[in-house]
Formats: sequence, C-alpha cells, structure tokens
Amino acid sequence: MIIVLKPNLDQKQYENLTMWLRNMNLELHESDGLYSKIIGLVGDTSAVDTDLIGAMEIVESVKRIHEPYKAANRKYHPLDTVIEVGAAKIGGGNFCAIAGPCSVETEEQICGIARDLKSIGAQMLRGGAFKPRTSPYSFQGLGVDGLGLLLKARAETGLPIVTEIMDLSQLPAFEDIDVIQVGARNMQNFQMLKELGKVRKPILLKRGLSNTIEEWLMSAEYVMAGGNGNVILCERGIRTFETATRNTLDLSAIPVVKELSHLPIIVDPSHATGHAKYVEAMSLAAVAAGADGLIIEVHNNPTAALCDGQQSLTPEAFRKLSGKIDVLRKSMA
Amino acid sequence: MIIVLKPNLDQKQYENLTMWLRNMNLELHESDGLYSKIIGLVGDTSAVDTDLIGAMEIVESVKRIHEPYKAANRKYHPLDTVIEVGAAKIGGGNFCAIAGPCSVETEEQICGIARDLKSIGAQMLRGGAFKPRTSPYSFQGLGVDGLGLLLKARAETGLPIVTEIMDLSQLPAFEDIDVIQVGARNMQNFQMLKELGKVRKPILLKRGLSNTIEEWLMSAEYVMAGGNGNVILCERGIRTFETATRNTLDLSAIPVVKELSHLPIIVDPSHATGHAKYVEAMSLAAVAAGADGLIIEVHNNPTAALCDGQQSLTPEAFRKLSGKIDVLRKSMA
Amino acid sequence: MIIVLKPNLDQKQYENLTMWLRNMNLELHESDGLYSKIIGLVGDTSAVDTDLIGAMEIVESVKRIHEPYKAANRKYHPLDTVIEVGAAKIGGGNFCAIAGPCSVETEEQICGIARDLKSIGAQMLRGGAFKPRTSPYSFQGLGVDGLGLLLKARAETGLPIVTEIMDLSQLPAFEDIDVIQVGARNMQNFQMLKELGKVRKPILLKRGLSNTIEEWLMSAEYVMAGGNGNVILCERGIRTFETATRNTLDLSAIPVVKELSHLPIIVDPSHATGHAKYVEAMSLAAVAAGADGLIIEVHNNPTAALCDGQQSLTPEAFRKLSGKIDVLRKSMA
Amino acid sequence: MIIVLKPNLDQKQYENLTMWLRNMNLELHESDGLYSKIIGLVGDTSAVDTDLIGAMEIVESVKRIHEPYKAANRKYHPLDTVIEVGAAKIGGGNFCAIAGPCSVETEEQICGIARDLKSIGAQMLRGGAFKPRTSPYSFQGLGVDGLGLLLKARAETGLPIVTEIMDLSQLPAFEDIDVIQVGARNMQNFQMLKELGKVRKPILLKRGLSNTIEEWLMSAEYVMAGGNGNVILCERGIRTFETATRNTLDLSAIPVVKELSHLPIIVDPSHATGHAKYVEAMSLAAVAAGADGLIIEVHNNPTAALCDGQQSLTPEAFRKLSGKIDVLRKSMA
Repeated sequence: MIIVLKPNLDQKQYENLTMWLRNMNLELHESDGLYSKIIGLVGDTSAVDTDLIGAMEIVESVKRIHEPYKAANRKYHPLDTVIEVGAAKIGGGNFCAIAGPCSVETEEQICGIARDLKSIGAQMLRGGAFKPRTSPYSFQGLGVDGLGLLLKARAETGLPIVTEIMDLSQLPAFEDIDVIQVGARNMQNFQMLKELGKVRKPILLKRGLSNTIEEWLMSAEYVMAGGNGNVILCERGIRTFETATRNTLDLSAIPVVKELSHLPIIVDPSHATGHAKYVEAMSLAAVAAGADGLIIEVHNNPTAALCDGQQSLTPEAFRKLSGKIDVLRKSMA
Repeated sequence: MIIVLKPNLDQKQYENLTMWLRNMNLELHESDGLYSKIIGLVGDTSAVDTDLIGAMEIVESVKRIHEPYKAANRKYHPLDTVIEVGAAKIGGGNFCAIAGPCSVETEEQICGIARDLKSIGAQMLRGGAFKPRTSPYSFQGLGVDGLGLLLKARAETGLPIVTEIMDLSQLPAFEDIDVIQVGARNMQNFQMLKELGKVRKPILLKRGLSNTIEEWLMSAEYVMAGGNGNVILCERGIRTFETATRNTLDLSAIPVVKELSHLPIIVDPSHATGHAKYVEAMSLAAVAAGADGLIIEVHNNPTAALCDGQQSLTPEAFRKLSGKIDVLRKSMA
Repeated sequence: MIIVLKPNLDQKQYENLTMWLRNMNLELHESDGLYSKIIGLVGDTSAVDTDLIGAMEIVESVKRIHEPYKAANRKYHPLDTVIEVGAAKIGGGNFCAIAGPCSVETEEQICGIARDLKSIGAQMLRGGAFKPRTSPYSFQGLGVDGLGLLLKARAETGLPIVTEIMDLSQLPAFEDIDVIQVGARNMQNFQMLKELGKVRKPILLKRGLSNTIEEWLMSAEYVMAGGNGNVILCERGIRTFETATRNTLDLSAIPVVKELSHLPIIVDPSHATGHAKYVEAMSLAAVAAGADGLIIEVHNNPTAALCDGQQSLTPEAFRKLSGKIDVLRKSMA
Repeated sequence: MIIVLKPNLDQKQYENLTMWLRNMNLELHESDGLYSKIIGLVGDTSAVDTDLIGAMEIVESVKRIHEPYKAANRKYHPLDTVIEVGAAKIGGGNFCAIAGPCSVETEEQICGIARDLKSIGAQMLRGGAFKPRTSPYSFQGLGVDGLGLLLKARAETGLPIVTEIMDLSQLPAFEDIDVIQVGARNMQNFQMLKELGKVRKPILLKRGLSNTIEEWLMSAEYVMAGGNGNVILCERGIRTFETATRNTLDLSAIPVVKELSHLPIIVDPSHATGHAKYVEAMSLAAVAAGADGLIIEVHNNPTAALCDGQQSLTPEAFRKLSGKIDVLRKSMA
C-alpha cells in the first residue's frame, strides 16, 4: 500500500500516523517526491482500512498495491478449487452444465423438464422458488412449495438442485438443497454472506449488476472468511448503456478471475442477454473463453412460462447446444 | 402498452393472444403496419407482464406507454406527499436536514454530535449501527448496541433517528427508531420491501447504484402496495466510469422524480462524492434543483472516524453549510 | 412509429400534426387509450425526425418500432455481405485474421513483423501511422512516413494493409492503402463518414466507447448512404465501471449485429482488454460467438514497443493462438 | 509515479529499466515489499509513458501519483483563468450566460432570437451551422451559410458568437467567429485539438460522453500545449444506464474541475437532460454548484425547430430563468 502525503505537512500528525502504522506490524518505506512525501507499507495490509487513512488531514491519497482479499486469492492458493456436488464437479478442468426453468410452476413442469435435462446430460437442475421481480404485481414464485417440487424432481432424476435464496429468513427451508444461489441483487448483502459462511453447502455467487470483479471477490471472501470455501462465481452481465441486450455479458471476467482467484467461474447467458436467440452464441463463447460451466434457462413451453420466457431455450434447443458444447470442448482438449 | 407482432404470424396463436388479453379486461386496438401488425392495449396494464408477452413466438417487441407504478405515480396522486417525523416535515415545500456520523461509535461521540447538530438546526439525526462494508475485515458497526446509543442521543436532543436496516432479522430492534433507511444495496431486496410495507414508519429508500429512476419508483411501489405510503426517496449517486468521485450524483433525478411522483426526494452528497471537499457544492446544487432535504455525514473528528471519515464534514463546516442553505432557500422563496 | 399524445390536447395543433404527417406519405392509425390518444405511423419512417415530433407541445412521447437504418439493415438485405481485400475475404462464412503492431516504428520492425505474420497465415497487416494518444506528450506516430513503411511491408509480403485515418486532411495519403480504419473516437465524426462514403475502399468501422449498437449501425449507414457498401464493423470494447480490463468487450454484439445487419463483424481483443494475457481467451470466445475475423496486436518486441506494448502478443504467441483458432473453427464447421 | 515489479525478477532487465529511467532525469526510490519490489519515481513524470513501462516483462503495475497534465493544472497555476470575449468574461467569479438555438435556420430566426436574448441579458449567442446528427437522413445544418447568418446576428446585437466546428477543413470559415466550440464527439479528436492550439480564439471544449475528467483535462492540455491557453470547459452530461434523461449531467465535475484546474467550467443543461422541462432546475443547480456560466438552448418556436426542439426553452422561459439565476447569484455573493 502506498500513502501519498500532502506537501508542507504537520510534523506532529505525521509522527502519529507513522506510529499508528508501525503498531499494525507494518514496515514503512518513506521517500520524498518533488511535491509530496510517499510512504510504502510492507506487510499484511489486507486489514488496513484505506478509507480511514484517506480521511486523515495530511494524506492526499492511498493506493493499494495488492488485492484486499486473501482466501479467494490465487497468489496464496495457486491450485484450482474443485467443487463437488453429487456426481458433478466444477473447476480444475471439470465442466458443469446447469439448466432448468426460471420459475418452478408445477410438479409436472419441473419433473418433466428435469427428465429432459437428465437425458440430454445436464449435471444439475436449476429453478426458482423465490423470485426477485421488479414489480410487486408480477408473479413472485411458489416459495417453500417450489423447493418441495424441486426436491421431487431430484428424487426422480438424481440431479442436484441449485436455487436462489432471497432472504436469510428462508435459510432453514434450504436444508436439503444442494447449491444455494445468491442473486446479483444480493451480492453485497453482507449479512447473508456471513451466514452462508457458516453453511457447508456450495454457494453460487452471482456478480452484481454494477459490481467490479474485485468487489465480487471480496463478497466471496466474506463467505470464505466464515469458513465455507465452496464458492462458485457466476458472471451474468453488468449494467451498461447498451439496450440491445438486457445486460452486457462481461466474458473478460473469465480470464481475469482465473488469474486472480482459484475459484471456479460459470456463466449465465440467459439472464445476461435476456433473449433465447443469443444464448447459443454466448454459451459457446463462454466455453471457449474457459468457463467452468454454464447455467442456462430451459423451459418446455417458453411462451407459457410465468416469468422470463423470452430468454428460455426449449429442451430441443438445449440438446442441440449441448452437442455443440461437447464438440467445442473436445477440440480444446 | 403496444405489442408489435412478427410478420406472417400464425393465426391460431394470434387468436389465443388476443383472447387472453381481452380476458384481462383490456381493450385492443389493432393496426397493420408495412412490416408488422401492432396491437395497442387500453385499460389498466400495470399488472400485465411484459416479459411474458415478449416471450410469445408471434411477438416481436412490447413497449409500455404508461408507467408500471400506480401508488407512487403523480398522475393518480397529483398532490405532494408530506411526511412528518416528530416536528420535522419532508415534502410539499418543507425542507429537512438530516445529519450525523457514518457509524455510531460511542455514547460520547453520538450524543456530542447530536447536541452540535441540534444547535445548528438539523432536524433529524442519522448514524449507522449496522454497516455494509465491502471487506469482511473492516469495522462492521456496533449493531443493536448502536441503536441503543442513537436512542440515547434522541432522548437528550429530541432529534428523530434515521438509521439503516441491513437484514430483515434486525427489524424488531427498529421498533423505537423513527425512520428506517433502506440502503442502496437493498433497494431491490423485495422481501425486505414487502415487510416494510406492513410497517407504519417512514422508509428512507436510497437509490441503487445501478438502478434507473423507474426501478426506484417500482421499489417504492413495493412498500406502498403493502400499505405504507410514507416513502422518502434518496438520491445518492449512481455507478459510472468516472473515478474522480466515488459515484456520480444524478441531480437530474430531482426534477424527474418530482414530475413522475408525489413522493419527497432528498439527496446524500456525502456518499455520492466520497469526499468532504465536494459536499458543500453538491448540497447547494441539490437545494437549488428542488430537493426536499439533505442527508449529510457529520463527525466531530473525521480523521478518527471508524469508517468513511474521508467524506464527513466537521460540525463547524456543517454550520457554515447550513447558513448557506438558509440563504439559498430564502432567495428561492 | 408510435406517437403518444398528451391528454386534453389542443384540437388545432392536433390537426396540424396529422396533416403534416400525411404530407410525408405516412398512413395514420389512431386509437384512444384511457389516458392518451396514440397514433401509429405506417410507411417509410426512416427519414422522420423523432426529436422534432417529440418537441411538439401536444406530444408526450415517440417510440420507433422499426430500425432507423436501411442500407445496413438485414431486413431489406437478407444475404451476408462479403468483402474482398486482395486474396482475403470477410463475411459470409469467410474468416479473416488481421494482425500487426500498434504503431509502425521502423522499416525493419514492420517488415519483420509482416514476414512473421505471413508465415503464420494472417491475411492482412495492421499498423498505426497516425496514433490517437490521450497525452500530447506521448509518441504520436510516424505519420505519412509510417504509411510508406506499411506499403513496403505489403510489397514484400503481399499482405493488404489496414491502417487508421485520424483526420480527413490525411485522406489523400491513404490512396494506396487497402482498408481504411475509422477509430472508436471517430465513429461519430459524421463529416469523415460522409467523405468515406465516396471512397470505394473497404472501411473498418470501430465501435465508439460509449455507442450503442444502433448508433454504430447508423454510422455504417452514413458511409453506405454515400454509396460505399464495404463496411466492416469492429467491436473493441465499451466503457463501463469495470477497471480490471481497459474496456469491457461486448461479445454479445456479434449475434446482435448478425441479426440486425448483413455486414461482417470482427473483434479487437487487444484494445478491449488492454492486456496481452487476456487476448487468447477473448479471441477464442469471439470466434466461438461467430465473429468474421479478429484484429490483434502483434509486436516482435512488445516491451520495447513505442505504444500499447502491454497488449501486444509476440509472434510466437500469435502463432500458438492461430493454431487454436484453426482447430476451433474446424470443430464448428 | 510508482512502479510495482514482479517477484523473482530478472536482474539484467531490472538494471536496464532503472538505467533508462535515470536517463530521463528521474530520481529512483526503491523499496522491497513482502511480495514485490517497488520503485518510486521523483521528478517531472508528465512525459513518462505509463503504457510503455507497464508492458515491460518485469513490471506488475504502474500507478501515477500526480496528474499527467501541466498547463491545465491548478497546482502550477493557482489563479483562476479569466477569458474575455468582447464585453463578456468567464471565470474568476465572472458568470456568462450563452444562449441560442440548436441550429441556425433563417436570418429572421437567428436575428430575432438574438434580439430577444440581448434584451434579456445573455452575453453570447450560440447556434449550430454544422450539426452532428446520428442519422444521415436528418437535417445537417446550413453549413457556411449558417456562419454568415450568425455574423449578421452579431452585427445587429453585438453578442459574440459561439458555434461548433465539426471538421478541421471548416476552420478557415471560423475566422470571424468569437468562440470555437469543440463538440463532445470531438473531445478526443487530437488532430483538431492540436490545430486549435495554434489559434488565438477561445475554445469551448465539451466533455465527451464517456470521458473522465482527467481525459477532458488532457484534451485541454493538447490545446494549451500548442500555445492557446483560452480553454473553456463545458460539462454536458455523460452516458450512463439511466434513460429518463438523455445523458446524466455530472455536476460534481464543477467542484472537481475547480480543484484540479484553473480553467473556467460552464454547463449545458439542455443537451444533458434532453428535455426543456428539466432545464431550469439543472441550470439553478449548476449555478449553485459554482459553474462559471451556462449554455442554454433557446428557440422562438421550439415545436417548429429543425432539431432538438424538445430541449429548447422559449425566450419567455429563458427570461424567467435568467431572473432566478440573478437572484440566486446575488444570494451567493
């Protein structure tokens, strides 16, 4: 960490600052520039609060040299994390296709889709029981009943279940769920992240619509700092000025995350683009860029889906896409 | 609402769509364009799910003509909402200055600041007990103890208390709090918004970092649909590419919100800019643009603040600013 | 095009508006909503100025139903445009790899790189003679001399030349250049686009940092409206809040452009990411998403490059990448 | 400037780097961190190319401590620049109201508006002769004839003229124009900026839609490095995800620019918001935030304007606004 001081600084405040820093077991390297004095901090700076230092009267600016996350940092954990869910593995070269409808609607619907997906080769079933909807007048999901229907689909097909928690009060109902999804809007719900750090299930952590990759890894760090190292990152598009797609899928996040962290990263092309017609191209692109998996909306009757039908593939389209992914992955091996 | 259909559409699907729409008590106006047929929907379309229609095979696009919110809409409620909190009023020409530290730290600190603010003329006291921090290694606030200290400051000064709820599980502890703040990260925590709709306290609803004004008003609608019409909107900066300020304060939101809604809107220049040195200019700008109030960070010792000291004014700076705001508001009367 | 009128409108103004619209050979379909009257316009609306209509006192809003571009629109030109440059073809299933240094520096440098690229199988040589640099104190390119060196490299290798024009005054010097590149900062330099419409060379039109896909296609329309249909679109990243990469590469633009337009689209992963280490992943992703080509920075000695060395591949790295692209493309055939 | 080196670096490359830096008359302060060696550069680093250093194999990252601009930097020029145009002054406490139509249409129109503005007290007349329009099918301005009409309006009223240059080839026609405007789309047209550095007229430099304040000041530096210190900065909104306004007016840029630079800054609320109804609120906000002037669209018949009528005030509305600005500025004195 580098602290740039203001010119003509107060000597007493300067001594207070340096003493305080040394008390945090940091070594100080000072050098005088033309316009300002600079302090380099050597040691573990991950717990140093840059806001606090930046607020000091004699400080002009503070710049981090190293990442503020540790548990999620590849520097200290060079090997890829591999997460196992039932028979499925994600990370370290293992690819995982997760698919299913936006919302669980009926037993017939979810079990039917699950059977289709199983036959196509998907490794996990996704489906929403609690739905975050922009309008209070839209369908809000089946709630706890939806979780029950997902478990029936698992019982029938053996596919592990990924589903989203919207509020901590729902956590007890997730006891039998395999992977708990944290939605983009909850990526910085720090209270929830802390509680999920105490759980021992894998957490699928979606990137927030306006969150940087560094903030995303800090949210993973919250879960990991609590003792739960099973975090799967999921890129799902960021908010930009472009309106042709619902969000802008940031596939560059894949090589960036793989450089900075050992955690697996998957991609959600359905929510990112918001249109089924763009899902195939972006799925293949994600695989080519090195994604560890995909999470794709599949519905047996998209035009009758109670939410987000616009972005759902039919099982036939998903079967075709799965075939292309297989060919692509083989060519990359 | 306008539905644009694809060319050469399937007649059977077309009949299904129009029958379904008529069953929702909507009147249909159809017209044939050069390339596509267009349906105009007349009636209450606020509960019509545009995603659902957009997903239909025969539909090319759907465009809303009218806003999807009703309770928050000035069209149906032309008069300004005025919210009363103790002796303070917000909206309808009533201006309210809310001030206080980022975090509650000690009884001495919060009561000392509260006395200063009272003497300067602030109408409410803000202070964080539960703090959303990007890093799990940063100070997280005093929690419930912090709420207790805020109540002590109220007992001493009579200033009503505004403080942030981070998770629904904390709600019982807010029983004696005057105004519950929903932070930018929780603006689309729909579960929380629903519960706050059952409360009868004013809700201070901050705009999310990447949320449009329409989404913000939809979040207000969640609270109002639950029966709680006491929503105060708070603009606090949106995320853009600019890095000179922490976020980009969108003051245009003031006249836009005043046109679209009857709810009061206040501005937080401290979090938006992230620097105390820009707070005065942006506070005055907000007042000139018609804001119904300001929420400003004030700390008796900013360089020793446990969080966000960089953006806090001293009581003296706040006193000077308050004087300027008074002069400005008188000139506008 | 849909025009939404304000309630309680002035009858005289209404008649003026409808007469004016009918005089433009448009058919009007009017319908009355609950709160407002709506006019649907049928006919060729590409020359209708939505700003002008939107400014009228009786108009609440205007919404386009169809795209405002014609020559670039796939609706009216369903077949892929294929652009030929010497032996190279772009579009309609033909893939083209363009490579070369950010800046032309010396004859030895550019001819050496050109020979390497030729041997690896690149189809065109890129290199900057006029360089847009943020700082007036940075290296600005060799100018016209640089163009001469590029032509020497072409003479030696036969590779067609792609290079950027920065100002119209430079146009005469581009007479022997094969493809004229319009940089992101000039995407809406309409004077330049008009002049390039009179040229008969292919134009490589980079997307502006903050331009939507629709604006990009409108810029292509400027060139095409002038009579030059040889436009190659190039996605090179848009500006967002993310700082881990220089810009955010919007690969979704590939399937979107392919749906909306018949023009070929290539991708520049070097400028988009700003780091050589991310170029391979994003190149492969672009190919998998259906890009018609790539434009990649390659320098024989990146750490001594006079600009943008940080994002340049070595010839060896490019050779390795080319091999992977070949395998990928074969697997997709 | 701080250079962070990679761990385990090659000693020979390290010596080459340090020798090269010392040859640029920079003093080096080296310190060893836990994971990496850090070099602090002391001296004039404005001409040091951070991209070049960042590309070196042994370098992990480069961070500037000081701004890369000099002529525009308040650090080296603490006093406000005051720019005089005829009787008008901008900067250093002098406020200037510039007004006029989007486009010059006829002699009657521009002279009529000019007379109105003169009587209201505007200090300069704006009007577009060359218009940047997104669509090739929209009205493109009167061109050189428009400049002639502006000069007639000046002859009649004495108001100095501000008008936009779109391409360098138009420069000779601007000989009699008082202030040359560089539009947002040309903010990084470096060739144009260089040429305008040779001119001795004031340059009104609009901020690019996706440009940071630092890039904006670097563009001012281009003009100033050429010898023309008369640069007026103009904030006109940046592109964000919000669609309620055309762009997001970044009023925080006012205090930020005033801190970093001595150049005057004015605000264009008309283009920023895109709606006349928001112009008054944002004008007053800009004045309260400390803007040195405003540039506002005024048209005698906005609904018949050939472009951007939607955002134009009538002369009466401008008169009312001018009165409010006067009261506001007096209250601030």
